[in-house]
Parts: sequence; C-alpha cells; structure tokens
Amino acid sequence: MIFYVLTLFPEIIQNYCGYSIMKRAVENGIFTVNTINPRDFTLNKHKKVDDTPYGGGAGMVLMPQPYVDAYESIVQCKNTVTVMLSPQGEPLCDKIVNELANYDKMILLCGHYEGFDERIREIIKPREISLGDFVLTGGELPALCLIDAVSRKLDGTLGKIESADEDSFSNGLIEYPHYTRPREYRGLKVPDVLLNGNHKDINEFRLQESLKRTKIKRPDLYQKYIENSSI
Amino acid sequence: MIFYVLTLFPEIIQNYCGYSIMKRAVENGIFTVNTINPRDFTLNKHKKVDDTPYGGGAGMVLMPQPYVDAYESIVQCKNTVTVMLSPQGEPLCDKIVNELANYDKMILLCGHYEGFDERIREIIKPREISLGDFVLTGGELPALCLIDAVSRKLDGTLGKIESADEDSFSNGLIEYPHYTRPREYRGLKVPDVLLNGNHKDINEFRLQESLKRTKIKRPDLYQKYIENSSI
Repeated sequence: MIFYVLTLFPEIIQNYCGYSIMKRAVENGIFTVNTINPRDFTLNKHKKVDDTPYGGGAGMVLMPQPYVDAYESIVQCKNTVTVMLSPQGEPLCDKIVNELANYDKMILLCGHYEGFDERIREIIKPREISLGDFVLTGGELPALCLIDAVSRKLDGTLGKIESADEDSFSNGLIEYPHYTRPREYRGLKVPDVLLNGNHKDINEFRLQESLKRTKIKRPDLYQKYIENSSI
Repeated sequence: MIFYVLTLFPEIIQNYCGYSIMKRAVENGIFTVNTINPRDFTLNKHKKVDDTPYGGGAGMVLMPQPYVDAYESIVQCKNTVTVMLSPQGEPLCDKIVNELANYDKMILLCGHYEGFDERIREIIKPREISLGDFVLTGGELPALCLIDAVSRKLDGTLGKIESADEDSFSNGLIEYPHYTRPREYRGLKVPDVLLNGNHKDINEFRLQESLKRTKIKRPDLYQKYIENSSI
C-alpha cells in the first residue's frame, strides 16, 4: 500500500510515522507514506495557498489551483482511492477501514484552516470521510488515524504476537478486559479463570465480559450483535 | 487550560503541538500541554511497562503500576477531568468537546499496543472517550484530536479572522460551501450571490446550502435540526 498525503504540514505526517508499530512497518516495506505539499504547486507569486472567502466570513479558504495541481501530479493506478478528510464525510468505522485496506494506493486530502474551495471537491470528487461530529484545525490528524487504522489490517504490520483479529469491533463487540502482572495490585486480583490454563473457560469468560460491557457501554452495538447472532 | 498527557510516546504529542494554530496558541499562553511518560515511573528493573496477558492472547498489556503512579504524580485541582482514550468510550462529538472545554485541567491517558490492564480503569475511574468504531495503535492520535478540538473552543486560540462559531455542527448542520479566488477556475464559477455584497442574500444562500448537504450527507443530523427548529 502506498499512501500519498496532500498537506500543508508534511512534518506532522512524517513525524507520526517515525514511531512505534508504524515506524517498524514502514521500515519493513509493508507500506510507504509520501507527502505532497500544495504550497510547492502554487502559481501565486507570493506562494499563497489560501485566501479570504467570497461573501465574507471567518477564516481562510484553500484555493483550488495548488490543491488540484498537487493532486494531478500523482500517478494513479487502477486500484487507487482518493479520500478527503472532512467533517462532512461518512464517519470512519471498522467496516470502512477494511474496505480501504483493499486498495493499492490511497490519496488523502487534508484541509486546514476554514476548509477547501468547493471546486476542489467538484473536480477531484473524493470519497469524504469524517472522524466524527467535531471540528479540528486540519485533516492531518484524521489522515493519520486512517493510515494507522488501515495499516493495521495489512499483512505484516502487526507482528506474530499482535493481532487485529482480537481488537474491539472485529467481532462486533467491545473487547474483553485485559490483565497482566502482577497477580494482585493494590488488593485487586486477576480473575482466577485466567490463571487456570483452561482455554475453553477463558474463551467463555472473555465472550461474556465482552457482551456485558458492550451491553452497558454501547447498547447500539449489542443490539446489532444479538440480531445477527439469532439469524 | 492545562493538558497532561500520559503516554509512552511523548514526542508524538509535543511534535503536533509545534505546528499551525496549536503552536501559536501555546506560545500565546492560551493552554499548555505537558507529557508524562509512565516509563519514568516503572519500578521494574528492566524499565518494562507492559507484559503478556494472563489467559493468553495476542499483544502486550500495559501494567498497572507505572500508569497509576504516573497518574498520581499529577496534582489535581477541583476542576480536573481525567479522560481515557479507548475504543470502548463514548464517541467524541461537539457537545462533549464543549463540555470538556469548561475544565481547568485535563489528564489524558493514552494506551498503546493491546491495551490497559483492567485495574488501571478500576483505580483511576476515568471518563472514557472514543474517536469511533475503529482501532488505532495507541491513544496518542485521539488525545491530539481532543486537545485540538477542545483548544479551538478556548478564548484566544483562534484569531479574530477565524471562528469556531461558523464551524460544522456549531448550529447542528454541516457547513455551507466555501469559495475563494479566482472567480472562475477550470470553467467553474463562484456563485453570483457571494459576489453581490448583499449579506441577507448571502446568509440565506449559505443556510439553504447547509440544509441541502446535511439532508443528503447526514440525514440523521438533518432530522434532529428540523425537529428542534419546529419546537
């Protein structure tokens, strides 16, 4: 998988990819992350990439020319998807992450300040994805969330001892509780069932705990799970 | 507002706060972001902060002692909120962002790898917040989203020419389209109404566009807006 991130702040993207599991996966060639700065494409003599909005109002709006030219500089293959990070998009979820992990190239368009000139949307026609109903300074954090979440689904990103299969949502439920050393901490003990080595009991305990906390914390997911299980 | 971020990757947090609007706001003293590394608190002689899960399974689990001790090193005031970033939490939205912006101190607990030992939750009893139904390598990106979104609501973060009041969701709708220079780009023109200087017309155009795209892209928000308007 190759990610291309169009951003006025390429350092934010590159910095994050230099840590932890992301760093190791990039070093192992599982995926690559390229950044393209629309500022390098502006034809404005002062290197401007934004201007005040027509009709008045707060904030600066990203001009179409630098973004569209930067976008068109990327050679696309058949299996490319273009995503605009925007509060107007469909909220990101595990299902979308799985879908996106099937592409070979992903182009991510990050806005900043007040937003994109509408004609950028009209010309590029990206898929729009949102992190949720709140507003951020730019699309860089959502782009990193998308790269992180998608890359976890690629073969080789997670090592043998890790696994995405046991993550929350992979079976439609919130994950069961985890315990590690010590066996007792401040009077709180690890449940006995996890210490007895009986894997059937352990799996049953974990499923029941997943169900219990999903029912309390996310009744919407619990309802869906129950409906699907009874089919 | 003072943010304290408990993380094994403090550089990720500090890097992001060194750019754009965040950087300026920190320099202007609107808020400060401190990082605390639980690794500095571990009593394990090999400086370990995680271990394999009891009962078996993939991944490493964060041990309670380093996290709880790091947490307890922070002096709390009356108006402090502690947030754990976790896929099990309530999904972040503009309403929660507004609530959180009223605190003086916010402690953010970032997990990494497979997750927290359950006893960390039991002892600290944090408010749990999620970015959505997908899984990330750690809580660092969600913590940064929270800091970014909350800091936009603080007086002075956004300059005079910016504003959070016109952002998406501040009136329950998706934002209207923006246009900036040039008036025509690749045959696509800025709508005439935005050029005529009649603010009543401009406001009406923007409201209608907001309604139109909210109805198409987010029928759930549209429905809520209509119900609230008719009361």
